[in-house]
Amino acid sequence: MTQTAGRPARPDFGFWCPITVRWGDMDALGHVNNAVYMTYLESARIAFFERWGWRFPGERTGVPVVVSQTFNYRQEVTYPAALEIGVTCTEVRRRSFVLTYGVFRQGTEVLMGDGTTILAWVDAAAGRAVAIPDDVRGLLTETGRR
Amino acid sequence: MTQTAGRPARPDFGFWCPITVRWGDMDALGHVNNAVYMTYLESARIAFFERWGWRFPGERTGVPVVVSQTFNYRQEVTYPAALEIGVTCTEVRRRSFVLTYGVFRQGTEVLMGDGTTILAWVDAAAGRAVAIPDDVRGLLTETGRR
Amino acid sequence: MTQTAGRPARPDFGFWCPITVRWGDMDALGHVNNAVYMTYLESARIAFFERWGWRFPGERTGVPVVVSQTFNYRQEVTYPAALEIGVTCTEVRRRSFVLTYGVFRQGTEVLMGDGTTILAWVDAAAGRAVAIPDDVRGLLTETGRR
Amino acid sequence: MTQTAGRPARPDFGFWCPITVRWGDMDALGHVNNAVYMTYLESARIAFFERWGWRFPGERTGVPVVVSQTFNYRQEVTYPAALEIGVTCTEVRRRSFVLTYGVFRQGTEVLMGDGTTILAWVDAAAGRAVAIPDDVRGLLTETGRR
Repeated sequence: MTQTAGRPARPDFGFWCPITVRWGDMDALGHVNNAVYMTYLESARIAFFERWGWRFPGERTGVPVVVSQTFNYRQEVTYPAALEIGVTCTEVRRRSFVLTYGVFRQGTEVLMGDGTTILAWVDAAAGRAVAIPDDVRGLLTETGRR
Repeated sequence: MTQTAGRPARPDFGFWCPITVRWGDMDALGHVNNAVYMTYLESARIAFFERWGWRFPGERTGVPVVVSQTFNYRQEVTYPAALEIGVTCTEVRRRSFVLTYGVFRQGTEVLMGDGTTILAWVDAAAGRAVAIPDDVRGLLTETGRR
Repeated sequence: MTQTAGRPARPDFGFWCPITVRWGDMDALGHVNNAVYMTYLESARIAFFERWGWRFPGERTGVPVVVSQTFNYRQEVTYPAALEIGVTCTEVRRRSFVLTYGVFRQGTEVLMGDGTTILAWVDAAAGRAVAIPDDVRGLLTETGRR
Repeated sequence: MTQTAGRPARPDFGFWCPITVRWGDMDALGHVNNAVYMTYLESARIAFFERWGWRFPGERTGVPVVVSQTFNYRQEVTYPAALEIGVTCTEVRRRSFVLTYGVFRQGTEVLMGDGTTILAWVDAAAGRAVAIPDDVRGLLTETGRR
């Protein structure tokens, strides 16, 4: 999926992270601030990885590093609100992969926003992108779009 | 420019906004958090509009509303750092327009990141996108890419 | 209670607000940032008031305005963590009142921090502190320390 | 100074840190959010320490750790605004010390808020407060209130 692609739907996602909107997430326009959605995606992304025992910062040699981010704001969110974020791996390349997110109002099919993150697989010691190891490739592929 | 387009350079920008990185902008990985760049772009975008007397929230009928966002993380930033963000309007459509940003280390050509925002022109009372008025179209075009 | 007073305990509180620590709440020292606790208290305070139908911003003439804040950091918190914040009104003066908070690890008596907020009762139109109305005084007193 | 003590004035401070208010520092009430002042104080506190070559995180054995915080909100701040924060050490105890801050509108005597932080001197390896070394005590005393 790209910035201009169609909207994701709930069946696209196999992993979910709940998010409780905080009053302080709103800005002077009285809705959740644009930047705060990136914090929501970060929470979902980290929960997605934690299933595999990954920690940030952690002890592993290979780590995913955010290379780029896209986000489509579909509907404004105001406090109070309970959201849930679907995460799936939509593409695995040689040295990078793509996560796609759908931000839904909890328990509904109402899409508040969606986006993608490209992450490089980086050798932490060498400080450069390297080929994704087979075991990681397997995890990412298994958790990809149904 | 799109997420995959080439890197912007300083001559692409006619408007600049300085940003002082705060210690608290860093996250547990010891560098400026991904989401905080969106706050930096927001500061630059609002300064870009303020030259025309616009305020947020303000009294105007037509307002720019963020529809989507892309960002490419080129180099990590650690505190302390002084940045400056170039902003330019790279496309004006019928009811929306595109701002492109370049985040540079202050006074240098070192690009830390770059991105784009698509903004719809919204009739605040009607709550829907409308045609960009001629005067706004003129301002956006004048300030576009050199 | 003041900054130097004893530690609050769970029985001191009759109202509770759960808080899920976000990864992004941590700073470069790898623990929840000092300032973020104020956001946690804000979430708890607003939930405390919302039981009475108050909204922020809202339509009421009289509004509570934060005048001062104290906080004692008892133990550092690292992600992941589930907290719960107890809130109680410990003092009602003529034109102001004091809320006291205890931040506990969820479901335990482990105190991570505690603090107080003094709030003035402000006439929103006049922009100045006025006497707390009897109905508000009643609500605050009922919800005070057991 | 304590929470209820008199207001600090510019001559009380020998160290100053400028702060540029960001649009995103405002909350849904249209003014700088209460919690954000703690981020401002943090920026000022870290700049205060950096004069001595201290870094956070750093390599030193002894580190200052925030134990408690007070803040008095004197006037609301709205974007755009340029502030400057005065910092001084108002008390040095055996294993802790007190920093006092005054948040002023830049270049004026208009006090927007003021507060104090108690910091313990902690042996990072041992993880407990220890006596403040003489050289640190000297630095803190020299930079104290005039």
